[in-house]
Amino acid sequence: MENKRPLILVSNDDGVTSKGISALIRFLRPLGEIVVMAPDAPRSGSGCALTTTQPVHYQLVKREVGLTVYKCSGTPTDCIKLARNTVLEREPDLVVGGINHGDNSATNVHYSGTMGVVIEGCLNGIPSIGFSICNHDADADFEPAGAYVHDIAAMVLEKGLPPLVCLNVNFPDTSELKGVKVCEQAKGAWTHEWESCPRMGDENYFWLTGSFVDHEPENEKNDHWALANGYVAITPTTVDVTAYGFMDELRKRLGCTTEGTEF
Amino acid sequence: MENKRPLILVSNDDGVTSKGISALIRFLRPLGEIVVMAPDAPRSGSGCALTTTQPVHYQLVKREVGLTVYKCSGTPTDCIKLARNTVLEREPDLVVGGINHGDNSATNVHYSGTMGVVIEGCLNGIPSIGFSICNHDADADFEPAGAYVHDIAAMVLEKGLPPLVCLNVNFPDTSELKGVKVCEQAKGAWTHEWESCPRMGDENYFWLTGSFVDHEPENEKNDHWALANGYVAITPTTVDVTAYGFMDELRKRLGCTTEGTEF
Repeated sequence: MENKRPLILVSNDDGVTSKGISALIRFLRPLGEIVVMAPDAPRSGSGCALTTTQPVHYQLVKREVGLTVYKCSGTPTDCIKLARNTVLEREPDLVVGGINHGDNSATNVHYSGTMGVVIEGCLNGIPSIGFSICNHDADADFEPAGAYVHDIAAMVLEKGLPPLVCLNVNFPDTSELKGVKVCEQAKGAWTHEWESCPRMGDENYFWLTGSFVDHEPENEKNDHWALANGYVAITPTTVDVTAYGFMDELRKRLGCTTEGTEF
Repeated sequence: MENKRPLILVSNDDGVTSKGISALIRFLRPLGEIVVMAPDAPRSGSGCALTTTQPVHYQLVKREVGLTVYKCSGTPTDCIKLARNTVLEREPDLVVGGINHGDNSATNVHYSGTMGVVIEGCLNGIPSIGFSICNHDADADFEPAGAYVHDIAAMVLEKGLPPLVCLNVNFPDTSELKGVKVCEQAKGAWTHEWESCPRMGDENYFWLTGSFVDHEPENEKNDHWALANGYVAITPTTVDVTAYGFMDELRKRLGCTTEGTEF
C-alpha cells in the first residue's frame, strides 16, 4: 500500500548533528514521513551557494519507521537539490530548514543557509518554511518553539503557499512567547565586520564578525521589532526579486519603451 | 589634492584572473578610480555565501594610476565586505560585479556569486550593478558589451538607484545587440541536476549540472525572452524580499491582527 502521509524534506546549515535539526525533526514527525538530507558539517552563511568545483557525496545515517536521515558533503542548497533528484521517489509536500542556531531575520535572509534550503524548495514549487532562533548556542532551548513549528507546518501542509512565496520564521530566545506576528524584513546593515588575525607577520588575515545596525529600530512592522518584543516573527518571503516599482522609472532613464530600445 | 573621481569597487565570482573582470575594468576605467577585490580562484554559484569557518586573506596584486587590484581567499560577498572595511578609505560610489562568464538571468540570481557582489553593495546603500554574458567560455567575446557597460554604469553614477534596488544586467552572446530591455526575472527551475560520478564502487557521488526549464517561455516581459531575442536584459532587483502581497492573507490564516496574536 502506498504511503499517503505527507513527505517532509528537512535540511539546515548547522549540520546533521546539530541540536536544532533534531528538535525540528521531533516537532515535525507527527505530521508526516520525514527525510533529512543535511550537511555533514556546519555550513553557516552559505546563502544559496552551490558546489560546482567538486562532486557532492551523500551517505545514509539512519533509517527507521517514518524517518530517514542522510548526510551530505554539499551546501544546504545542494542538499535539497540532491535529495529531490536521488533519494526521494516523489516531490516532497513540504521543505523545512532549521531550526537554525541564530536568527535569520532582517536582511540576513540573504546570507542564510537555512533560507537557502527554503528558497530552493520554493523555486521548485514546494511549500517551504525556515525556522531559526535568536540563540547561537549549541545547546539552545528549542522547546518553546515546538508547538509553533508544528502548527505553522501543519497550516502550510493543509493550505499550501502562493507560488514563489516561502516563510521565514524566527523565534526570540524566550520561553514566554507572546504569539505570532506577520512581519516585513527589517532593513539594516552590518558594521565592524572583520577582526584582524595576523599570521606570521602578515596583517591581511581577518575573521568575519560584526554587529547589525537596524535602520528602523522603531518600526513595529518589521521582524526585528517582533523578536525584540517577544513575538514569533513570520516574514513571508518572495523568490521573485524583480524590483517592479522601479521598472517604469528605469525605462524613462534609458529612454526605452516596454518593447526595448536603443540606448 | 583630494581625488574626486568616482570610486568604483569591482569584484566577480570567476576569479581575479578571468577575462570577464579584465574586460569590465577596461570598460569602467574612463569613469573613475577602480579598486578590484576579487576571489583568487573561481567561486561560481557562491550566491551571497560568507566565509565563517576560517579567516579570509587578501593580497595586493598590482597598483597603477587609477587602478588597484587585490585578490582574496573569500567569497564574492566577502570581497565586498573586506574591501569596504580594509583597503578603501571611503565608501565606493559604485559596486560592480562581473562580467560573469555565463548568464545570471531568471531565478539564477539566487545562486549567482556575481549578484552576491551586487546584493552586498546594495545592502550597504551603494548603487550596485551586475553584468553577465550568455557564454561560459573562458575566452568569451565581451567587446560588444563594452559601450553598454560604460553607459549603464555612467547613468547609475550620475543618477543613483533607489534604496534596496540594484541592477542585474545580462548580455546575449552576439555582436548584434538590439538595444536594452527592462525586464522581469524569468520564472523557471532546473531539471536533471546531477550527473553520477561513482568512486571506488560508491554510487553516491554526483556532479552538479542540469538544464533550466523556463515556465513562461512566451512571456515577452522577462529577461530570458529579451536575451533570446538579442536584447541586453536589465532586471531591476530588490533586496527587500518581503512578500508584501501575502501578508494579509497570512494574517487571516493565522487569525492574527497586524499587532500580532496568539496562534
